[in-house]
Amino acid sequence: MKKLFYYNWQKRQEWFEWAFELPEEDLLLNRTGGVGNILETLLHIVVVEIGWLKDLKGELFDDDLTGYITLEKVKHLNDQYHHEIKDYIESWTTDREDLRIDIEGETFTEGEVLNHIIVHEIHHSGQLSIWSRALGKKPVRANYIHRGLGV
Amino acid sequence: MKKLFYYNWQKRQEWFEWAFELPEEDLLLNRTGGVGNILETLLHIVVVEIGWLKDLKGELFDDDLTGYITLEKVKHLNDQYHHEIKDYIESWTTDREDLRIDIEGETFTEGEVLNHIIVHEIHHSGQLSIWSRALGKKPVRANYIHRGLGV
Repeated sequence: MKKLFYYNWQKRQEWFEWAFELPEEDLLLNRTGGVGNILETLLHIVVVEIGWLKDLKGELFDDDLTGYITLEKVKHLNDQYHHEIKDYIESWTTDREDLRIDIEGETFTEGEVLNHIIVHEIHHSGQLSIWSRALGKKPVRANYIHRGLGV
Repeated sequence: MKKLFYYNWQKRQEWFEWAFELPEEDLLLNRTGGVGNILETLLHIVVVEIGWLKDLKGELFDDDLTGYITLEKVKHLNDQYHHEIKDYIESWTTDREDLRIDIEGETFTEGEVLNHIIVHEIHHSGQLSIWSRALGKKPVRANYIHRGLGV
């Protein structure tokens, strides 16, 4: 499970690098499907991970996100929380898999929430890859192999 | 890990149902990005899973795929191999995670290959979701939660 987070974090870094090469209009252009544009997709990936992790920790994530309208700010938000998230994932052990946790009136298991976060990012990354080709740019590699995640 | 396969299999079934409602021209229309059209994407998801699983089993997958030009045939190929794949995944144990395996001159670990298969399908499913909105259709739900995969 942890390695799927490492995969997402590697790829997210690459998507940020890819996005920093784009003009602002491409980041903000309204697109069909997903959450509607590239910048919002990156923000959404970052915020959803923080939000669920905070839920797992029983903490509140109520940052005001209205100002996150530039790539720099989204990347800053990502970096701001990354170590906290990484620490949580690194110290998580599989015996917690089936532990139940109540979040906003619903019951999940910890393993379910972690898988949800993993899948969420890969899904939106697939969407970004289509928009990348529409821009005539090579998307970030989706492959899990050849990323040093084997052993 | 197994539950991420269950997630993919649930969702794949839903994508097939979604696809069976489409006219053939929508399945075959050339689209930007990914593997180029909806039918090829579904075939690609199915074939990549079979191919890697056969590699893990040390068996050959050399079916002639040139005839898989209809949704019925792609679904049939999927169903034909599903039980074999399911049996393999069900009986897999995490102590095999770091076992090395040589495939076509490269060395992988079993865990790496399984994660690769998981990620591969989610990625292409994200692409299908963009094409679904372009067709004016609601895509298959991407959420991992609310699929009974918690406990």
